[in-house]
Amino acid sequence: MAHIKLADGLPGIRGLLVYSPRTAKPIGELAEVLLRGPSTLSRAERELIATHVSFRNECHYCQSCHGAIAAEEFGGADVDYALVDQVKRNAETAPVSAKMKALLAIAGHVQQDGKRVTSADVERARREGATDQEIHDVVLIAAAFCMFNRYVDGLGTWQPSNPAFYREAGKRTSELGYVNRDYSTPVRE
Amino acid sequence: MAHIKLADGLPGIRGLLVYSPRTAKPIGELAEVLLRGPSTLSRAERELIATHVSFRNECHYCQSCHGAIAAEEFGGADVDYALVDQVKRNAETAPVSAKMKALLAIAGHVQQDGKRVTSADVERARREGATDQEIHDVVLIAAAFCMFNRYVDGLGTWQPSNPAFYREAGKRTSELGYVNRDYSTPVRE
Repeated sequence: MAHIKLADGLPGIRGLLVYSPRTAKPIGELAEVLLRGPSTLSRAERELIATHVSFRNECHYCQSCHGAIAAEEFGGADVDYALVDQVKRNAETAPVSAKMKALLAIAGHVQQDGKRVTSADVERARREGATDQEIHDVVLIAAAFCMFNRYVDGLGTWQPSNPAFYREAGKRTSELGYVNRDYSTPVRE
Repeated sequence: MAHIKLADGLPGIRGLLVYSPRTAKPIGELAEVLLRGPSTLSRAERELIATHVSFRNECHYCQSCHGAIAAEEFGGADVDYALVDQVKRNAETAPVSAKMKALLAIAGHVQQDGKRVTSADVERARREGATDQEIHDVVLIAAAFCMFNRYVDGLGTWQPSNPAFYREAGKRTSELGYVNRDYSTPVRE
């Protein structure tokens, strides 16, 4: 049971966004700009970064939702879920580009502590073709998920265990995005 | 030197807000709602929570800025800086209310990992008079500063060492808030 009284049947961040509309607005806008706004990183790549950080923070809800969104953005086939799992567990051996590996390494360091990001991390990313804007965006995506993960876990929200819930949520978010959504319809496990 | 090319003379988050206006907007709005919007927690109390989390994340820029804002909100006398320092170092022995101690304990657990917040933490806060809304807001303030701290540190921003800079910044933010600010004027140490 959540630490505060939330509406029934609204898992993870959904119950919190409905509980607190004043903060839901900038939170949704930040997610939309970071994960779906104009960028030289694809939506799938940005969702993979979000998933990797959420996995490292052991936030079941966020890693499952954003992993499903990443899989959707890559095309929705089963093979993409396998890729998402590989990136979560060990980005260095996952079948992603050398640039993505370098960006995921930066994200992993941000997850621990911003001061863990070294000049060598940034030089490696630049050598693999990353721009300043991409490095900025990856640091902020990783930092933002350190917020989202703590928000969802810190209030003890309900986090469904059924993978079908997350596949459906991934499809919906891939289609509709993060703003102007109605999260108030209860779901069942 | 910062990890990406930022405008000269813009310390901490200022250079980042100027670098990325698209993300600066929701970030500023989130800070404004959380730290200065209508609440049964005073602005000083909310800035103390932000300062405590930033101290625990060892973010020099954020703990100094928000510590100065908290001191300003308490009244700006030197004695308030001493209080801010006490809260940073050990909230349990600091001269704040029993309710604030309970809320700071929740914030400290969120800083480590959202899952560290226990039912006992929440019951303690409730026993000392905290409402659901206050518990929600404290968790989100603490989570948000885990983002801000990582954003500022993760991009290796310039963080002035001169306390006079932070006192001035604290006065300005206490007066002007977090939105519709022009952060583009360079400062000197």
